[in-house]
Order: sequence, then C-alpha cells, then structure tokens
Amino acid sequence: MDQHEFLARLAQPADSRIVLLVLDGVGDLRTLEQPQTALEAARTPYMDALARRSALGRIVPAGHGITPGSGPGHLALFGYDPRTPEADIGRGVLEALGSGVEVRPGDVAARGNFATANGEGLITDRRAGRISTPECKRLVRVLQAAIEALPIAGVEVELTAGEGHRFVLLLRGEGLSPEIRDTDPQQLGVRPLEPQARKSEAEATVDKLNQVLAVLQAAVAEEPRANRLLLRGFSVLPNLPQLWDVHQMRCGAFAGYPLYRGVAGACGMEVVPCGKSFADTLAEAERHWDRFDFFFLHVKQTDAAGEDGNLAAKVAVIEEVDTQLPDLLALEPDVLVITGDHSTPAPIKAHSWHPVPLLLNSARCFTDECTMFNESAAIGGHLGTFPAQDLMALMLANAGRLKKFGA
Amino acid sequence: MDQHEFLARLAQPADSRIVLLVLDGVGDLRTLEQPQTALEAARTPYMDALARRSALGRIVPAGHGITPGSGPGHLALFGYDPRTPEADIGRGVLEALGSGVEVRPGDVAARGNFATANGEGLITDRRAGRISTPECKRLVRVLQAAIEALPIAGVEVELTAGEGHRFVLLLRGEGLSPEIRDTDPQQLGVRPLEPQARKSEAEATVDKLNQVLAVLQAAVAEEPRANRLLLRGFSVLPNLPQLWDVHQMRCGAFAGYPLYRGVAGACGMEVVPCGKSFADTLAEAERHWDRFDFFFLHVKQTDAAGEDGNLAAKVAVIEEVDTQLPDLLALEPDVLVITGDHSTPAPIKAHSWHPVPLLLNSARCFTDECTMFNESAAIGGHLGTFPAQDLMALMLANAGRLKKFGA
Repeated sequence: MDQHEFLARLAQPADSRIVLLVLDGVGDLRTLEQPQTALEAARTPYMDALARRSALGRIVPAGHGITPGSGPGHLALFGYDPRTPEADIGRGVLEALGSGVEVRPGDVAARGNFATANGEGLITDRRAGRISTPECKRLVRVLQAAIEALPIAGVEVELTAGEGHRFVLLLRGEGLSPEIRDTDPQQLGVRPLEPQARKSEAEATVDKLNQVLAVLQAAVAEEPRANRLLLRGFSVLPNLPQLWDVHQMRCGAFAGYPLYRGVAGACGMEVVPCGKSFADTLAEAERHWDRFDFFFLHVKQTDAAGEDGNLAAKVAVIEEVDTQLPDLLALEPDVLVITGDHSTPAPIKAHSWHPVPLLLNSARCFTDECTMFNESAAIGGHLGTFPAQDLMALMLANAGRLKKFGA
Repeated sequence: MDQHEFLARLAQPADSRIVLLVLDGVGDLRTLEQPQTALEAARTPYMDALARRSALGRIVPAGHGITPGSGPGHLALFGYDPRTPEADIGRGVLEALGSGVEVRPGDVAARGNFATANGEGLITDRRAGRISTPECKRLVRVLQAAIEALPIAGVEVELTAGEGHRFVLLLRGEGLSPEIRDTDPQQLGVRPLEPQARKSEAEATVDKLNQVLAVLQAAVAEEPRANRLLLRGFSVLPNLPQLWDVHQMRCGAFAGYPLYRGVAGACGMEVVPCGKSFADTLAEAERHWDRFDFFFLHVKQTDAAGEDGNLAAKVAVIEEVDTQLPDLLALEPDVLVITGDHSTPAPIKAHSWHPVPLLLNSARCFTDECTMFNESAAIGGHLGTFPAQDLMALMLANAGRLKKFGA
C-alpha cells in the first residue's frame, strides 16, 4: 500500500468536488469486422464538447495483457494496486458488502445459493429453479428464525437475502477463520460438499459451521425446491486503507448493483443506494452534493451490452449518458473524470485487457487537441497511457488536494 | 519473479499458436545525417499491409536510457525482468546452452579460448590466430581424451568446440561453485591468470579446476598455436521460472546463433537448431508447427548490420524478411508479433536504449491507424509504449491463454 501511504503524506483538504463517472467496460475494439468502437459510433455531442476543453488519456487497469474482474478494475480506479494480496477481496465479503450487510473485522462471509436436491440428497438444480427474490426473502427469514431458536455457542449468524436464489451468510465470533473450502460442488448429481478447513487454523470454525448448517438445513429440508444450501467464497474483510482516511475526503458511492457498492464500501466509501439507471444515480448524487467531496458514479449497462456482444446497445447506453451530461456538468464538479474499469469489447463479449480511454476535466487540466472522447483520440491525449491506480493521484492533484512533494 | 508467479496463476491452455519474430537490434534512429530509419527506408509491402490490420506500439527493453545486451534484451521479451539478479545468466552457461551442451543444475560452465603463448609462457595471441572451427574440434577431442585418460576424482569434465578459437568447459560434480575469477587476463604479454576463488565456498572447486587444467594444458602444450587455455564467465544455470511451466505452453526456439539458443534454453524453451538465414529459420518452424504453442524466431543480421553502421545492409535484411512474410502468415499463427530485443542504430554502430517498434496481430487486437511498421508510426499505435517484459502477457492475452484476474 505504498502509493496510499505516499499520498496520505501529501493530502490536504480543499473545498473541491471530484466526480469519477465509471462507464463499466466502456473500452472497445476496432477490428476488420467492427470498424468503429462503441464510443466512436455513438453520437455524443456533450462528451465531444467536453473533450475539447479536457485532457484525454488511457488507463491500463491491472497490467498490460491482464483482464481484470470488476473488483480489481474498481480497486485500481480507487488508487489501490489490485495485484497485491492485501487487495484481494473475497467473493463472500464482496457479496455481503454489496447486499448492504455490515461486515466487521473478523467476520466471515460466504455467498450462498439455494439449491434443489432429490430424495437421495443429490443436487438436481444448483439454483433451486431460480426462485424469485421475494421467495428468497421468505426462506432467509425461515433460516434466521431457526438459528435464533437454536443458537450455536460462540458464533452469531446473520443471513441476508440477495437476488433470486442468492443469499449471504455472515458468521461473527472470536477467532473465526475464512480458510474454508466451498461446499458448492459446482456440478449436478452429487451431494453438497462437507465444509473442510483449508488450513488447520480453520478447524474450529468448520466445527461451528457444521453445527450452524445442521440447524439451517433442517429448517428448509421440506421445501419443494430450495431444500439445500451451497456456500462459496468464505472470506474476511480485507485490510484496505480507507479512502476518507488517506485523502481526507468524504467519499460517496452511487451504484445500482451490489458488487460495485461492495468494493466501494471496502475502500471506505459511504454507499448510497440508488436505482440502476444513470438518471437515478445522478439524481441521488445531486441530492447528496453537499455531503461528499468525492463521488463515484457507476453505470453498469455499457458492460452488460459488451458482454452480450451488442454494439448497438452499448452505443445506446453511451448516448443516454451523454444526453444527461449537462445535468452532471450543472453541478459544477471541480474535477470530472469519465472512464471505465476495463474494456468489454463487443467482438470479445467479455472483459478484456485493452487500455481504457479516459477524459479528465478541471480548471487545471491541459486542453489537448482531442475533439472527441474515444479510444483512438485518447491515444494522442495529454495524459498518455498509465496504470489505472495512478488515476486517484491525478484526480486529487486536479482538485488541489495534494501538497507539493519535497521542498 | 512476481510477474511470472502472477501470470502462472492466470495461465490457461488454449489451442492457439504465438509467433514472436525478433529482428535483432531492428530499432534505429532518424538523425540529421540519416533522415530515415532502416524500417522507414525499407520497401516492406507485406509488413505494411499487416500493420493496417494490426496494433502497433513500442517496447522499452530494460528501462529508459538502459542499453541492454542480447541476454537482458531477450529475457525481457520472454517476460522476465532483466534487472533482477535471478535473471543474470552467466556467459559460460549462455555459451554452453547455445552450443547445445546439456547444462544441469549445479554444473559449472565457462567459456574457453584457445590462445598462443611464447616460450616464456607470455600470451602473444588471445585467439590462437583465430584457428578454424575444424581445428578447434580436433583440439577439443585431444583435450577430452586427455582428461578421460587422467580423470580427476569428484569432477566430470565435458569439453565442447565452438566457432573458431572458442570452446566450452563444463564441470559436473557435487558441491561445485561458480565463484571463480576469469583466467583470461584480457591482455597480451602476460601469463594466463591462476584460477582464484571469488568466495571461500569456491576454494574446493578451484582445487579441482587446477588439477583439470594441469591435465588439459599438458595435452596441448606442444601445439604450435593453440597451446594455452583461457577461461571466462564461470557460472551455473540460473534458477529461472521455466516458460512451459509458467504458461502451460510448449515453447520452441528457432535461432541460428548460440547465444540466443542459450537464453531461450535457460528459459525452458526447446532449442531447435536451424540455419542462419530467415528462410531456414522459417522452414524449420514450419516443420515443427504441430509441436509447439510458442515460436521464437530469431533474425540476427539486422543487428550485425547496425553494428557495422551499414544502413543499406540493415534495409536489405528487413526487405528479405518482408518477402518471406507471406510464408509465415500462411501458417496462420493466432498471434504474430514482430519486434526487436533492442535498437542497434546504424549511426551509433552499437546496441542502444531507444524504444523498439512492435507490431502485434491477432483476431483480438485493436486495428489502429498505423499503415506502416516503423519507429515513427509506432509512436501513435494503440499498444502505446511499455516495458518489454509486459509483452509476454500481451501475447498470451491475445492468444486466449490468460484467465480473468479476480471477480
């Protein structure tokens, strides 16, 4: 965490607001079959006008050639080196944070699936027929009531419903270890796996977990579909430097989807729940404009369209964001950055390693010769191509929030 | 070796072939006296056509301002940080590997020169009048027979003829140390130096080496020219992560010259001997097309022409490679990279630190606006300018051989 320690020494408060607008997976490709990227194909008069008075560049999320998941992609945007072990946020904790569960140091979190097993105990559906979210909530209430009626000594259990068949299991107590293997066998026709310790330090936790699971399994054993629990991604909160602490900034995260809220929360941002459209996200940021110095606004749909290989849909999302850009600019952020956490090129239908274009506007930015915001223009931008984890320092500098280094 | 550990975690097998075509020292300069680089002056219709559907960029071999030797230059291309001590391959081992000698862990290798000494034992020619390669082979047979007739307890000795006056001495046995000073005094009119231990751990090895040298020297003492042996670069195999292990790829090295075979061998590539022309190299690669996933093809003559300050010769080599590019493309590699291990600008007549242009073609590359492959065009390429040791990850990514990092 050297970069954060370094920045912490230089941090100074300022009366300035930074907006980091992340168009998830916005970076795209030009190929022989797809001669324009989504940003190139989109009609974006407001972004283009902004580009004319901004500096462009490109970020490399997790290293050349490395395709980042959403976790590492966002950690880099928030100034963390996503490749250090300390920055490895387990899936259980991510899901818990994203679901609004308060995760404290030492708590062990796991992702849960409701599944269906047949009369012999063999799994026939790992998602219990994709039960509805209300049904999931009902089942979680059943589980919570069961464990409260038959508590296990030395461990508190908190269950939280997610979307569809998903839930979060949180264990709280002294000396718990997350070094436990998944119980989800990831295949049909077999029994759920027994919890097993990955390291001997976890054996006591596995004992308690077995007792907890016995109570929980019994409570849903007679359910027609959701009669088994599968657990994955046992993990504890990573010990990340907290952004408000490092940068002396109040940071707000405005994201419609759990995972992004989870990452932001783990970094010390206050998560402000908001809807899934950019209009909702923007409205919520406006409502909280006086409460924060740093605003992380997340747009998921660019990534989803890229994963679908749907260039037209990706273009439409970008154009939709563009039409609302004037509302964002009307808030008069001192620093506005538009970029992505990684590329999700439509021809690849998946995250990729390609550099992501970046636009930075502030009163202190170099207005380079770029007149449009897209991948090709960004190659020649004033900011150059640099590791994504350096973006935070650049935003802070443009916001007047970093002192001179040395005399 | 953090980058290799990181990549090893992400490696996944794929049915794809990567070709890394290294035009040794291809990077060149534009100066007032030399207004075009070799790549700019060369007529390269096939490379230019390829550039139009590829991504260009530039690599920095061993850091800005650092002029790499051939060893560090190639290690960086193969994904190693050439500046770590672990990546320091001794000259003796390089020469041995390049000469096709099997070097096992613990073996100590040295480069040998046949030299001429006068009646007083003073060296009059450090290269024994540049004896012919057949003469060298004869002398090495004499040496090998002598040491087999009078073996030294605890050490096996293997001698291998090189080109002209060069040979390789390999010592094999328990507890040998390479911490031995050169016996080559690097000047005339003096005696060969006695072997000396650089560290006390090498004293036992020096004892054995003295016994070995007594036998060998006696065997050639009456030769008219090659009557002395000079040894340099005592070294053991570096403990480099092996490419096939890290990347789950079968790697083949196709190079006409020993040093490049040596580096490739030390990295875990299988060295396929081939001729010195690009036509030979390419034909050999084609013959082994089904045996490997990764092909390192080496062209030496660009570097040699640069070292001679002969721009026309360098241009001719590049044009010769270009005419054969269709044969390479006909193999349909999934990823083709053309670059150099460093620049050898004709005006400098030596290796230099200047970034090296890079062309990467794959179905997943960004087809940028570059329409020619040369230094100037590459400045504006989509790949940007990056450390050479990141190229391996980029090739793997384009070949579908790296999993997503994190969730």
